[in-house]
Amino acid sequence: MSRRSTASEGQSPLVEAVAGNGLLDRRFFIKQSVALFGVGGLGAVARSARAADPTQLPPWMQFPGAGMSSYGSPAKYESKVVRALIQSKPGTTGSGASRTPIESLDGMITPNGLHFERHHSGVPDIDPDSHRLLIHGLVKRPLIFTVDTLLRYPLVSRIHFLECSGNSLSMFGATPPALTCGQVHGLLSCSEWTGVPLRLLLEEAGADLTVPWMLAEGADAAGMSRSVPMAKALDDAMLALYQNGERLRPENGYPVRLFLPGYEGNMNVKWLRRLKVIATPIMTKDETSRYTDLQADGKSLMFTFPMDVKSVITRPSPGVALRAPGLYEVSGIAWSGHGAIKQVDVSADGGLTWAPAALSDPVLPRALTRFRIAWKWNGAPAILKSRATDETGAVQPTRDALITAHGTNAIFHYNAIQAWQVETSGEVKNVYA
Amino acid sequence: MSRRSTASEGQSPLVEAVAGNGLLDRRFFIKQSVALFGVGGLGAVARSARAADPTQLPPWMQFPGAGMSSYGSPAKYESKVVRALIQSKPGTTGSGASRTPIESLDGMITPNGLHFERHHSGVPDIDPDSHRLLIHGLVKRPLIFTVDTLLRYPLVSRIHFLECSGNSLSMFGATPPALTCGQVHGLLSCSEWTGVPLRLLLEEAGADLTVPWMLAEGADAAGMSRSVPMAKALDDAMLALYQNGERLRPENGYPVRLFLPGYEGNMNVKWLRRLKVIATPIMTKDETSRYTDLQADGKSLMFTFPMDVKSVITRPSPGVALRAPGLYEVSGIAWSGHGAIKQVDVSADGGLTWAPAALSDPVLPRALTRFRIAWKWNGAPAILKSRATDETGAVQPTRDALITAHGTNAIFHYNAIQAWQVETSGEVKNVYA
Repeated sequence: MSRRSTASEGQSPLVEAVAGNGLLDRRFFIKQSVALFGVGGLGAVARSARAADPTQLPPWMQFPGAGMSSYGSPAKYESKVVRALIQSKPGTTGSGASRTPIESLDGMITPNGLHFERHHSGVPDIDPDSHRLLIHGLVKRPLIFTVDTLLRYPLVSRIHFLECSGNSLSMFGATPPALTCGQVHGLLSCSEWTGVPLRLLLEEAGADLTVPWMLAEGADAAGMSRSVPMAKALDDAMLALYQNGERLRPENGYPVRLFLPGYEGNMNVKWLRRLKVIATPIMTKDETSRYTDLQADGKSLMFTFPMDVKSVITRPSPGVALRAPGLYEVSGIAWSGHGAIKQVDVSADGGLTWAPAALSDPVLPRALTRFRIAWKWNGAPAILKSRATDETGAVQPTRDALITAHGTNAIFHYNAIQAWQVETSGEVKNVYA
Repeated sequence: MSRRSTASEGQSPLVEAVAGNGLLDRRFFIKQSVALFGVGGLGAVARSARAADPTQLPPWMQFPGAGMSSYGSPAKYESKVVRALIQSKPGTTGSGASRTPIESLDGMITPNGLHFERHHSGVPDIDPDSHRLLIHGLVKRPLIFTVDTLLRYPLVSRIHFLECSGNSLSMFGATPPALTCGQVHGLLSCSEWTGVPLRLLLEEAGADLTVPWMLAEGADAAGMSRSVPMAKALDDAMLALYQNGERLRPENGYPVRLFLPGYEGNMNVKWLRRLKVIATPIMTKDETSRYTDLQADGKSLMFTFPMDVKSVITRPSPGVALRAPGLYEVSGIAWSGHGAIKQVDVSADGGLTWAPAALSDPVLPRALTRFRIAWKWNGAPAILKSRATDETGAVQPTRDALITAHGTNAIFHYNAIQAWQVETSGEVKNVYA
């Protein structure tokens, strides 16, 4: 902290910590003049005549720049901000996952190029003119839809997160994985999805809406298939055609995917080719050998569809270090498959004390919510945590509580509080604390 | 319409038109079973055993698909969905505009690769480590910021549209341009912007906040510069660093741009290198020879910053035709630089009668708002219009009223009601009506 900030600390009630180890009121940055507190004195005073002289032109002002482009790309200087690829089996291309580098992003929207992937037999190259969607089973009129016809139906647009149920699974391990935030928690993205309400198509097919299940099948070589509750289909399910304004990307289900807001990613069947209305769940390989939650006693939980309330601090985090003691913004994301985020509390003393973070508007149901809070780091080791509460009142559990309840056989639905240890050097480590 | 739908029309009050020529209640698609109305019978009945047989696998299910990618791209089948490039002078690369293909998009978010561009001397290739932002003029402490230091400040995230003040200028012409919706109105995009509140940096520099103006200068070869009111800087201005989650794209100001929500695009100076607090506007070339509004009497309006209330129907529109008489969703976007959209009315009879469209949540201030309404096209020629009203009560004017007020010397701030003529063939034409 600069001398300015030290001198003024006694003058404002807001500078007083609202929780231990330097957490400041969530309105700190809104209410306070940063000049009074210096933000670590980040702005260098313009002493150098050369640096301050606006007629000294950098090289890129001396010649015209590049022309326009029909479809843009990120700056070459950001080439490290990419999805982290992890193949399920080395040497295969078809099965694996890529993770969103959430530690390098801000806001709530994930750009389409960085949306996470999870494939079971690669990304099919589907000609939209040849793709068909069949609705059959316990329906009066089996119907076949082309993509062109789906595009003519009434559409809805909503901003929702998508999270793989296997997100954060490395945190079940005995030792905390030494990975970035995205490598651990990046099977998570958030987009504006636009599609046809599934209810409309079921009604058009004359589906028996009292039948409790349907099968959803994808057009990848794995024929990835899940049983979907009719109740969800009739509630807010959509057949998504657009993602963040443009048509779906191939790796996200082009030309059409099922989208079930708040449900585990795998349920949101990509490249959707078939919906069959059925009386009982079909028990596919994708919901028996996988995507069940094996408990400590050897029994499995099945059909654990909604993703529970969760949050993570993205900055600081491993690889996104602090530089020197001073004032920082702690920033992260929170989400819940059960509704909107109601509150995110942050701790800088390992969970002894907590303070509510500011939530960035709009706070939407089943969408990522960005939270922020001011933190004055004194340079000593500190443990940062965030703890989300959703509108149903559900609170993110501690890791101990999660493991006590579910054991360590499970690999899905890990939603415990994440602890980041800030070292004296400013580096950040993943810890169990 | 299918026989089903005809037979059921008398059974529900909602099917009755709420405005002339077939416009239906905005809740039509929510409240009504589509099966009852058939949506033109889009779903083909699955008569063919082959088509209905889910064991008939398409070619892309017979082999594993492609592997994961570190940064994704749109499907090759969508290669026509690109920005429309128009160079200001043929043969130059540095000056011109590219337009967002809004007729091919849905929802409110524009993907970063399709955000419109307007350059005055091309896209500079700026090394973020060398870029500097100077805040000087009537300040106590001139400050120089690196990009790394800007990234450490507290951030805000908000979804806002950006519109070039020259958007839709071809509509001032004597005859309606035979162009797509995006070619006419696509200097318009909407993103989630994340950046540092400008107020914080001005306070840190000890700027005299009673001084009414500042100069904002870009680091392109044109040194694009505008005078910015201090009042806006202290209100909701930000120095944007992220767009839709990731760092800005080069063509949108990487590594940092000024963002002034609701103000004409040109004010949102890209590649920002300098803010100088000044007592009077500096009258740069970019606000005198350009970006003033020449009126019929030869005088110019200056400093017409906010973009006024506006809307346009994107589907149907020229090139996005209807196929046959039947039930359609009319979809479009509305926005206002003065706040949130309050209402969008749609007419299918050239403006004789109007019905309110449904607005897609969230409806945010100074953001695109998607509107939708059901329309039963009877196959006869029809003129579709949309008319937006914002929360200040401002209503989008007719073209006649706009031209009566401002003449046809102006090329900026065209915000009149757009008329699309649907021909018997289903093709759509731009008309003055």
